[in-house]
Amino acid sequence: MLADNPSVLPRFLAPDLHGGERAITLDQEETHHLVHVLRLRRGERARVFDGDGHEWEGLVSSLDKRGAVIDELRPVTPLPEPRVRVTLFAAMLRGPAMDALVRDAAMLGASAIVPVFTEHCSVSRKASATPHHADRWRRLAVAGSKQSGRSVVPAIGTPEPLDVALSRCRHGVRLLLVEPTASAGTVGRIDELGARARREGATLAMGPEGGWAPGEIRHAMEAGFRAWSLGHQVLRAEAVPVAALSVLRYAWEA
Amino acid sequence: MLADNPSVLPRFLAPDLHGGERAITLDQEETHHLVHVLRLRRGERARVFDGDGHEWEGLVSSLDKRGAVIDELRPVTPLPEPRVRVTLFAAMLRGPAMDALVRDAAMLGASAIVPVFTEHCSVSRKASATPHHADRWRRLAVAGSKQSGRSVVPAIGTPEPLDVALSRCRHGVRLLLVEPTASAGTVGRIDELGARARREGATLAMGPEGGWAPGEIRHAMEAGFRAWSLGHQVLRAEAVPVAALSVLRYAWEA
Repeated sequence: MLADNPSVLPRFLAPDLHGGERAITLDQEETHHLVHVLRLRRGERARVFDGDGHEWEGLVSSLDKRGAVIDELRPVTPLPEPRVRVTLFAAMLRGPAMDALVRDAAMLGASAIVPVFTEHCSVSRKASATPHHADRWRRLAVAGSKQSGRSVVPAIGTPEPLDVALSRCRHGVRLLLVEPTASAGTVGRIDELGARARREGATLAMGPEGGWAPGEIRHAMEAGFRAWSLGHQVLRAEAVPVAALSVLRYAWEA
Repeated sequence: MLADNPSVLPRFLAPDLHGGERAITLDQEETHHLVHVLRLRRGERARVFDGDGHEWEGLVSSLDKRGAVIDELRPVTPLPEPRVRVTLFAAMLRGPAMDALVRDAAMLGASAIVPVFTEHCSVSRKASATPHHADRWRRLAVAGSKQSGRSVVPAIGTPEPLDVALSRCRHGVRLLLVEPTASAGTVGRIDELGARARREGATLAMGPEGGWAPGEIRHAMEAGFRAWSLGHQVLRAEAVPVAALSVLRYAWEA
């Protein structure tokens, strides 16, 4: 479902913008997108955002080899961010599922994504903690933010073992997403956690296709996490981040 | 995320089961799944469900050319269905997106799916209302129900024009999913519609990639629909059914 509102302009990432500039030259990738994908021409309006919550509107003023230039920049009000800052601890999934997770988490308003290695991960540490992956995820997060109209691009952490991530997480509402069939007692409605989540932020830990190991669930409980399930049904892996983040956002925006 | 509970048995659809039988022979497709995909052997336990809310457990007793037989059937308690019966009016999407929608709607507990033609549909009526499509969607709905552990397979209507579907819809909570940028006044929190939704059911209408035409929104309002938006962000097409149905389910299960 694309935006049906004609006032939605093409948007480009310019992380180097600081706010005082009158013009910005887009990097190679964004220039390619402007010229070859969206086929903008000189004089057309466009927006740029810095990935950190700031957005500007301007005009495409030149298109040469050094990059597309957006000129006559003036600040505009960015789309409001979710009221709760949600950090996602995401167990490493296989390639396409991990790609979808990063893009969808950015689209649905996650503040940060930390890939974590878990016992039942189907992905080896060596194969997935490369600069290539970091770069790929960064681009997918940018795509997700663009798609959704956000001016923030979530930070993506370096993949790390689950226990390291857990031990660093000491604040806010902490939820461990578990299967509906999990035997651990789960928190019921999460509405009541909303006030604390809005005040202190939240962390949501999502497991791999093979589920959490019992020791991981115990470890998370000791680190202040509470088990949360999306309901009776079992969802396919790609649908889980979308479902979980949509529900968190709905439940906590009130 | 697959079920991590070993008590989850392989499940097969047997729409001809009525309840009194001691054994059932699976059809060709389900037999193929049992023999070649899941590689079950004689004596293994399995479940069968009728697609209409009933489920049995039994033993694989023979595997011959006429089909796999599940014997010693005894009724078991099926997974509870969602408390709200949700019918989805789904604007026709392009092939893979429509496939994902049908499977995900089944997975997330929809009671029925009615494909509708709308003004901005990217899919022609002639090309998409064939027996081939009906059969494909039926199989995807079965896959979604199996995945999620449901014993109900949602009915899939014959594709029809939106105005025909609207004119037949006279009961329950009626929501028209609109873009966050839509100018129409949208209903805020849907929690308060929960009591009526649980009593009378609900219909959720989801638009095509190109959005609703203004006349369609007006027509839906006249038919008792209320505009509802998922929030500020714009989601990619495949994520919309998952997000919308997850939020409805969360909001209305209370």
